[in-house]
Amino acid sequence: MESSSRKIAVIGSGAVGGFYGGLLSKSGCDVSFLIHSQFESVKESGLFIESIWGDFNLPQAKYVSSSKDFDTEIDIILIALKSTENKQLTELLRPFQNSRKKLKIILIQNGIGQEKIIHELLPQAKVFGGLAFLCSIKKSANTIQHIDYGDLTLAESSADETALGIGSELQDLGKLFQEAGITITLEEDLILARWKKLVWNIPFNGLSVLLQSQTNELVENSSSLELIRELMLEVQKAALSEGRIIPNSFLEDRLQKTFSMKPYPTSMKLDYDQGRSMELDAIYRSVLQRAESFNLNLPNIMFLLYSLEYLEKYRNDKK
Amino acid sequence: MESSSRKIAVIGSGAVGGFYGGLLSKSGCDVSFLIHSQFESVKESGLFIESIWGDFNLPQAKYVSSSKDFDTEIDIILIALKSTENKQLTELLRPFQNSRKKLKIILIQNGIGQEKIIHELLPQAKVFGGLAFLCSIKKSANTIQHIDYGDLTLAESSADETALGIGSELQDLGKLFQEAGITITLEEDLILARWKKLVWNIPFNGLSVLLQSQTNELVENSSSLELIRELMLEVQKAALSEGRIIPNSFLEDRLQKTFSMKPYPTSMKLDYDQGRSMELDAIYRSVLQRAESFNLNLPNIMFLLYSLEYLEKYRNDKK
Repeated sequence: MESSSRKIAVIGSGAVGGFYGGLLSKSGCDVSFLIHSQFESVKESGLFIESIWGDFNLPQAKYVSSSKDFDTEIDIILIALKSTENKQLTELLRPFQNSRKKLKIILIQNGIGQEKIIHELLPQAKVFGGLAFLCSIKKSANTIQHIDYGDLTLAESSADETALGIGSELQDLGKLFQEAGITITLEEDLILARWKKLVWNIPFNGLSVLLQSQTNELVENSSSLELIRELMLEVQKAALSEGRIIPNSFLEDRLQKTFSMKPYPTSMKLDYDQGRSMELDAIYRSVLQRAESFNLNLPNIMFLLYSLEYLEKYRNDKK
Repeated sequence: MESSSRKIAVIGSGAVGGFYGGLLSKSGCDVSFLIHSQFESVKESGLFIESIWGDFNLPQAKYVSSSKDFDTEIDIILIALKSTENKQLTELLRPFQNSRKKLKIILIQNGIGQEKIIHELLPQAKVFGGLAFLCSIKKSANTIQHIDYGDLTLAESSADETALGIGSELQDLGKLFQEAGITITLEEDLILARWKKLVWNIPFNGLSVLLQSQTNELVENSSSLELIRELMLEVQKAALSEGRIIPNSFLEDRLQKTFSMKPYPTSMKLDYDQGRSMELDAIYRSVLQRAESFNLNLPNIMFLLYSLEYLEKYRNDKK
């Protein structure tokens, strides 16, 4: 199937969805973006991507102000809302509940287990999870700035969270993204991939807020490094309780990579500092809930979550 | 024995030692203060206590600039250094090692186990621990401001940390302080008293720094209240490992009292905010070390200590 014949809807046209959707549009896919704020102005000017790979605009893209206005022939829905906005999904996906197409849905988000919502809303759809290793920000209503990285991992999701391997549809999706210039890794087990991402996100997102520091500062200090290790070990333990094995070498590798990464405030720190909700449900509460069902105690993750809850409430009260 | 015949040396003439030593001097004891900074000026003007109980100065007090200059007939040494200064004690107490008197030493400090140093330095001395419930600050080299409270708990210390009950010498000391207008509680078991104080200090000192909040804010939020409870339970567990029983009702009582206390930044928050060392050894590391000898894991206290270590190092690096 040619790129040009793929009809893609992007829900969550921000720093992540705007970037990946933009690259797909540039490569020839028929991409429609759902635009929430300043719709008229964005529709008029179009989205613009300032990228370290070269700036570009999207002359072929379409824009809608409501998910009801998406083309009825959509093949692929790319959801890249912040997980804190997932309560909107019921409403946003309703127009697709009677789709005649065999829908493919890709949920690019932090956290674990959020695909469940999609399986429930659209039981006939094929659901995929996306894990972005991307540093980008939304600079204005129509401009996305791509600062660094850009790799994307994709895996198929099942309602019962079993591993589905790498089927032809996943391969097909991977090719589509690759043709758009995106470095793609396909994984056999979405849940394992999500746990692996949490090995990094659980310590660094939370600690960067709690200790008001960047990732390099956190790995360079022996006390915070101890905290990071404890948190990583708890993620490893929680993953194992679900039969997902993460070797110690993987934890060490994440630490080593962070040493050599350039100084970087995490997405959670940006959210916190800019007064937005933090992704506590997707990244922390989901993990604690899953662990609880195995009677697994994760005191370090719990301490971090309680602290972040306090800081968020405290910040909001002072607003 | 008359107050006037008691020769008392105060080591650590700050917010705590200056206040209690000042009251003892006012009540007629022969009190000498060791003054480290601006000795000439303090000797000239004398210490001044601005107290909610009424301001007073100390016309009878003596001042020395070195512990070698204390009267050789000292009966009681009141040590109220910050625990972070305890490495100075070897030097400061050396002049008393050949004392002909049966010395009584009172160590008024936060934390647990620091009396050990005194038992080692002066094995013939009677050692007592003091726990101050006092809100006071050193306003200038010669002025101490007493803001609130003032109660003092006293108990006798033994080198092997067994409880020594309330003997006649402890009663005698208690009377001396009471005659100076201080509300005194005598305890049979110093170590139990220290653990009980840590039930409050461990959560509130550290969290007030980590979450940059006052005690009332910490008890009024359900997430931080959860953290406080977890930390208190770990202190309770650590105390129990040493055979010291702290009932749950005591924990609840501390929480209730904190609800009704007036908003108050802890001493550790004042230390941190003003760039001074925090009492991490006395309050946190000592507890973790003691627990370790019982193979007791205290993850919440550990998390808090690592965070505080990070913040202190980070603050000092930025200076």
